[in-house]
Amino acid sequence: MPPDPRPVTPVDPGPSLTVIALLGVPEVRPGDDLATMILDAIEATPGVVPLRADDVLVVTQKVVSKAEGAIVDLKAVEPRPEAVEFGKAWDRDPRQLEVVLREAARVVRMEHGVLITETPHGFICANGGVDASNVGPASGSVVTLLPKDPDASAARIRHAIRERHGVDVPVVISDSFGRPWRWGIVDVAIGVSGLLPIEDLRGSPDRDGRVMKSTIRAVADELASAAELALGKVAGRPAAIVRGAAFTRGEGSIRDALMPASWDLFR
Amino acid sequence: MPPDPRPVTPVDPGPSLTVIALLGVPEVRPGDDLATMILDAIEATPGVVPLRADDVLVVTQKVVSKAEGAIVDLKAVEPRPEAVEFGKAWDRDPRQLEVVLREAARVVRMEHGVLITETPHGFICANGGVDASNVGPASGSVVTLLPKDPDASAARIRHAIRERHGVDVPVVISDSFGRPWRWGIVDVAIGVSGLLPIEDLRGSPDRDGRVMKSTIRAVADELASAAELALGKVAGRPAAIVRGAAFTRGEGSIRDALMPASWDLFR
Repeated sequence: MPPDPRPVTPVDPGPSLTVIALLGVPEVRPGDDLATMILDAIEATPGVVPLRADDVLVVTQKVVSKAEGAIVDLKAVEPRPEAVEFGKAWDRDPRQLEVVLREAARVVRMEHGVLITETPHGFICANGGVDASNVGPASGSVVTLLPKDPDASAARIRHAIRERHGVDVPVVISDSFGRPWRWGIVDVAIGVSGLLPIEDLRGSPDRDGRVMKSTIRAVADELASAAELALGKVAGRPAAIVRGAAFTRGEGSIRDALMPASWDLFR
Repeated sequence: MPPDPRPVTPVDPGPSLTVIALLGVPEVRPGDDLATMILDAIEATPGVVPLRADDVLVVTQKVVSKAEGAIVDLKAVEPRPEAVEFGKAWDRDPRQLEVVLREAARVVRMEHGVLITETPHGFICANGGVDASNVGPASGSVVTLLPKDPDASAARIRHAIRERHGVDVPVVISDSFGRPWRWGIVDVAIGVSGLLPIEDLRGSPDRDGRVMKSTIRAVADELASAAELALGKVAGRPAAIVRGAAFTRGEGSIRDALMPASWDLFR
């Protein structure tokens, strides 16, 4: 349980929610004005405008990183011996491993072909979020890094929407993370603006009037996962509106979602 | 990476998906015919019938466990000394800890007030899925266990739907799990019928024509999370239809989603 609970009033969700993939977002390149590209897609996608008070915008990491120039061309990377050796043993690109190690605040596991690091943001994930697929033409040499400050990336897009539409739509930046003990990746939040990523219902009564002891909803992560179901992995769809979900507004930070080391049983 | 990949053709999702919470499911008690109760709710909830080929039904664990009688009254439980001691140190009910330990195949962590076990199904989660809140009147003494065979629970509901509606709607049984490194719980799949819980896109081309190396979507988990956003935690809504998500039909099992011990870096 978090040492510093922040109870909130639970929001009763409406009877349905809709996830609408934004259509027509062009290929994003370094220096592009992503907020404007997303605004154009919001207006081009049928049924999105007028934006509503129960909308959340989910934007996938890759376009944010590309627009912000958080990319590295592996052609210019000289891998350290450790990366060369691990790459050889497990059939992995040693230059990508080198980038992951450079970006890492801490190596959590480096075994079995898997490199799990803690990033400077505090995320613990495979390859520190350094990702090769789906960046530019099929040259194979460019990788994306995580955005430097994903909360700030989310805030910029949120403010651009408010400027143009007068509606305060919370924004989640999402990325695909694996999990211990289960196969596969799910989209989770790596940045938020305008909502609480964690909704602490401890102290709220459940339907029998009993006080709930341990219900802390990771709402931002679920919003990211719901968006992924409409975005898929190959469709070139980098953003979605989630309309009608149960979430709580507030000036949250993704840091609220990260477990401090003192509570981490899986260092 | 899983040792036994099962590549599938990626399904391009439609431009939007909808999650519809089923309304009017009554309080479920041991011995109840849950499939019929859900069928009645499907018919009572506006906009659900006719069921569609892109529907998935998500049912939360608690009603499944209740209907199947997978509950224990703590009044009859005698805790072992280890449970008494841990409960005293961390202000937890030693009888619930005793039930968790009895149900466990293995204790993964028992420290810092947290008890994480591996269940006989192979799930690794806090309290082995034994859950106190929201079961019957506020007596405080009844807990739910996980269903014995959640794939079978899903299959029974799926077959009942096919019988009555002639549509093969895949079913996911969901439960709320915590994750290492991040606060809060998200809903994940603990049982499936009629879909592949893991969609292995390795070998599929991404949008640049490059072959994706590590994209294994945990689709069933994302379906469970999306459903939670429409169900919430206090609304007495135990099931939802997810319409229009990208998933792949097939005779999958939740065992496909579990990482074998030999790949587990966080034993």
